[in-house]
Amino acid sequence: MILDKVNNPVDLRNLTYDEMGILSDEMRDLIINKVNTIGGHCGPNLGIAEMTIALHYVFNSPEDKIVFDVSHQCYPHKILTGRKEGFLNKENYHTYTGYTAPEESPHDIFKVGHTSTSVSLAAGLAKARDLKGENYNVIAIIGDGSLSGGEALEGLDNAAVLGSNIIIVVNDNDMSIAPNAGGLYKNLRELRESNGSAECNFFKSLGFDYMFVDDGNDVVKMIEAFSKVKDINHPIVLHVVTEKGKGLKPAVENKEMFHWILPGTLDENREIIQREYSSYESYNSITKDYILRKAAEDKTVIAISPATPGVYGFDEEFRNKLGSQYVDTGIAEEHAVAFASGLAKNGAKPILNVMSSFIQRTYDQLSQDLCLNNSPVTLLIWWGGISEADATHLCSFDISMMSNIPNLVYLAPTNKEEYLTMLDWSVNQEKYSVAIRVPSEPVKSTGTPDNTDYSNSINKFKMVSQGKDVAILGLGSFFKLANDVAKEIENKLGIHPTIINPRFITGLDTEMLESLKTNHNVVVTLEDGILNGGFGEKIASYYGNSGMRVLNYGAKKEFTDRVPLSVLYNRYRLTKEQITDDVQKCLSIAAL
Amino acid sequence: MILDKVNNPVDLRNLTYDEMGILSDEMRDLIINKVNTIGGHCGPNLGIAEMTIALHYVFNSPEDKIVFDVSHQCYPHKILTGRKEGFLNKENYHTYTGYTAPEESPHDIFKVGHTSTSVSLAAGLAKARDLKGENYNVIAIIGDGSLSGGEALEGLDNAAVLGSNIIIVVNDNDMSIAPNAGGLYKNLRELRESNGSAECNFFKSLGFDYMFVDDGNDVVKMIEAFSKVKDINHPIVLHVVTEKGKGLKPAVENKEMFHWILPGTLDENREIIQREYSSYESYNSITKDYILRKAAEDKTVIAISPATPGVYGFDEEFRNKLGSQYVDTGIAEEHAVAFASGLAKNGAKPILNVMSSFIQRTYDQLSQDLCLNNSPVTLLIWWGGISEADATHLCSFDISMMSNIPNLVYLAPTNKEEYLTMLDWSVNQEKYSVAIRVPSEPVKSTGTPDNTDYSNSINKFKMVSQGKDVAILGLGSFFKLANDVAKEIENKLGIHPTIINPRFITGLDTEMLESLKTNHNVVVTLEDGILNGGFGEKIASYYGNSGMRVLNYGAKKEFTDRVPLSVLYNRYRLTKEQITDDVQKCLSIAAL
Repeated sequence: MILDKVNNPVDLRNLTYDEMGILSDEMRDLIINKVNTIGGHCGPNLGIAEMTIALHYVFNSPEDKIVFDVSHQCYPHKILTGRKEGFLNKENYHTYTGYTAPEESPHDIFKVGHTSTSVSLAAGLAKARDLKGENYNVIAIIGDGSLSGGEALEGLDNAAVLGSNIIIVVNDNDMSIAPNAGGLYKNLRELRESNGSAECNFFKSLGFDYMFVDDGNDVVKMIEAFSKVKDINHPIVLHVVTEKGKGLKPAVENKEMFHWILPGTLDENREIIQREYSSYESYNSITKDYILRKAAEDKTVIAISPATPGVYGFDEEFRNKLGSQYVDTGIAEEHAVAFASGLAKNGAKPILNVMSSFIQRTYDQLSQDLCLNNSPVTLLIWWGGISEADATHLCSFDISMMSNIPNLVYLAPTNKEEYLTMLDWSVNQEKYSVAIRVPSEPVKSTGTPDNTDYSNSINKFKMVSQGKDVAILGLGSFFKLANDVAKEIENKLGIHPTIINPRFITGLDTEMLESLKTNHNVVVTLEDGILNGGFGEKIASYYGNSGMRVLNYGAKKEFTDRVPLSVLYNRYRLTKEQITDDVQKCLSIAAL
Repeated sequence: MILDKVNNPVDLRNLTYDEMGILSDEMRDLIINKVNTIGGHCGPNLGIAEMTIALHYVFNSPEDKIVFDVSHQCYPHKILTGRKEGFLNKENYHTYTGYTAPEESPHDIFKVGHTSTSVSLAAGLAKARDLKGENYNVIAIIGDGSLSGGEALEGLDNAAVLGSNIIIVVNDNDMSIAPNAGGLYKNLRELRESNGSAECNFFKSLGFDYMFVDDGNDVVKMIEAFSKVKDINHPIVLHVVTEKGKGLKPAVENKEMFHWILPGTLDENREIIQREYSSYESYNSITKDYILRKAAEDKTVIAISPATPGVYGFDEEFRNKLGSQYVDTGIAEEHAVAFASGLAKNGAKPILNVMSSFIQRTYDQLSQDLCLNNSPVTLLIWWGGISEADATHLCSFDISMMSNIPNLVYLAPTNKEEYLTMLDWSVNQEKYSVAIRVPSEPVKSTGTPDNTDYSNSINKFKMVSQGKDVAILGLGSFFKLANDVAKEIENKLGIHPTIINPRFITGLDTEMLESLKTNHNVVVTLEDGILNGGFGEKIASYYGNSGMRVLNYGAKKEFTDRVPLSVLYNRYRLTKEQITDDVQKCLSIAAL
């Protein structure tokens, strides 16, 4: 293997161009095996192999500083910077994260997982270099859909006037996760089709110098291009065309599907394993069915996704059926929220879908564009909850971030029927900005329709089981835990606890909370997210001037990184046994 | 007065062009008198008078939908849409807000005060129109610095491919609040200088049709231009050059100063009233002195402002002295945070200044770019606290938004000495991302330097006065209130309360909180911001499993609109009398 000769970027200097070509294929081979075994980003990494070799051949990392945007395309970079064992042996597949991580290597400067940040981060590195009077290259590698994020555009606007060396490599594979949307990508296409010579040039208009490379999968061309821009004394954009999924036929032919693949996607011949169309019900399928039905009835119903339709199962068939009633804004969450607000103010019924981790990009839009205007938008928040995700894709912050914004009604359904009733209520009402935390668990069905009129039940919690002494409030996906805890308490302590489904994250049912005082001593709150700024603390604050004991359960305020759920639950005392122990202690103390 | 004939936009159709010119001057006259009496946005409104007349002459608002970005340039629009009495008589000066407000008029579609939102909001209106099969114009008016915000750029990228009528009016006055920064504004200059014909055209590169108007203060030219684009069937940018401060010599000559003016800026001849340079100490002057001194010592110290230097008193002299150690990113808060993170990671010492209301635009950048990377940035948050501001510029959300982000150290100094020690500590340390809530009150000095080593005191509260029964935690600018309440309690209840200065917003001093249990029954928390998701709720949660009573004080989660502080304090029970009453009740109950 050529890779045997490469332990560090400098080793690339001893290779011939032909060997570099072979090395690209070797790396792709390792990547395919790895992602097909444990899952991971496939297409983006296959496309960037040659560019990464050229990058490390021409530049001197870590003295020259390289920032990968999103960094889900850093696998070849990791292989070349001392971490190849994470790809060579199955036992080491989990050793390194799928993103750049400074704790792993000096070649990684930032921990990055959200998009559109590289240009600003690199501009900061470059400006610090200039202040210190140092000389080296700063390179941001952006593309694969990240360009359309507001932060990237702000960054480009500012980087263009930096006045010194900064090299923005635009890795143009004509794709985001899903196909690209927006005027900027039309311009990239014009530039591609004109070999970089089109009169309208987005980057030049911002004041960048500009260079075009028609085949970024040709290692020699890339070495030439990088050599030309190395040590340049002003900002330049290097626009490089690459093929997403390069070297793997199914990935080239199914770019969206192969952006990130699950383990076992390919058979031993690297053909897609055809699976039976799974007809089991999921919150994806329930949501899609609802939207399709509603959109057919009402031409103003419109589903919006900022670039991640796969998260919600919005496949091509679904999108095509919706036609003009579906909009993918590209990676542009801020726009998506304001756009939805505009739609709602003009009488449409937007259903905006965002993953919990990415709704973080829209605090001010939620506050100013949406809630201050009380625009009747339905916001579906996906994947919310404590998870085993890497540190950049945690989904445990949405309750804390969103629920303290005035006017928002944030709902936490606990089963299919509740979800559907809440969704339909939200779409049909015109008074509130509503968010729904779509359950991130297998579908639970009660079999009985939820007939609640939520307009007349704002901030009304639901008493599911009336008991005494202990009341357990199980929010959304932790409602099941509330039931488990109740049983455990009944078995262990002989107490029949009250079980409450709060339903509303954004307000307190003070009437019910007040009524609990008569025959309860302890209130337990359970929420699937960080405690800080969340739901439970408000309950504790409410009871602050009373003798009621309150025990809040949820995650700690921390960035966890691929920690197993069982470890996290134990750490946060989220098992029924731990909670029951705490309740028992609290009851004994309260009784003293 | 020509204005006598204009009560609604349709009345403009009865005027001659000459009368419209006179009307522009009349409106300017009213605006100058008003803002010089009660304060307000001056330059932006003077520059847009003719354009607004032409707009309402050509289009049919509210059927045609007009969205003003930031909307601080909506005064002429308000005068022409039934609200002129808010400008004609002093008694009515406070009747209408300085921003668009749907509750005032059907001609205002959104409540807007933060920048860069108009294109996305308008795109939503336009898309809803298309879904409904309706026909009218949707117009976004953006400029005056707003173009560089990420949300605007995302919006432009998406609006360009809308495929139907949307008219983006770029009001190009070559200014933000301070002079514009960034590559985009260089392009606007090229376009201005080439009469719109420069080869590099930012808007065309995104796919917009484009039209240029060289004199937006010529009402006839504007009527012609608007007539040409009216009912257009595709997205177009109308790039209009206007003069900020038009018609008022001091405003034209001092564009930055006259963006927003205080009452009494002008004398009766409309000359600037020269005032003695005030040498009194403020947190502005303290901060500036510190930065200048530190920057002279250390070339890696760099002050950053996203477009609002006036908020921190960063005047031209200060900026010039700092030279390359000062960066105005333009309106680009997201970039500013990531840029600062990059600077810090490469060994510089960035001091990023942002107003509380605008830090809202950076939740994800604070989380991902900054805190996940533990970049040692110093973030100064200005004007934080409950205020009489309009609904769009409230500064009461920063604690709730920021303090639940992992890794951040958010500090709340209570006096000058503490502030300076915290600031210097933050700039010199390399371990934490630090934010400091700059006191938004007159400078208080203890006269004694604060010798705390904050690295060894993370999350350590300061016991200022040891008492018993009641402990009062006064956070930041509410530390004074804590002292007032303590005196009141002592006088009224004969109890000598413990007074604590928490200093740290982002963590609990559990040791001290635990120790309070021995001889305290009630803990009172005071914070100058919304309670929800804030500091006090965490104290209540901490004591949830104990018998300690906790009373949390702060603002309610709501958008208030120009409500006097005394009213708000009363509403939130933030007077020493109310708090003492509550404590008394709580003590009696606790004693039962």
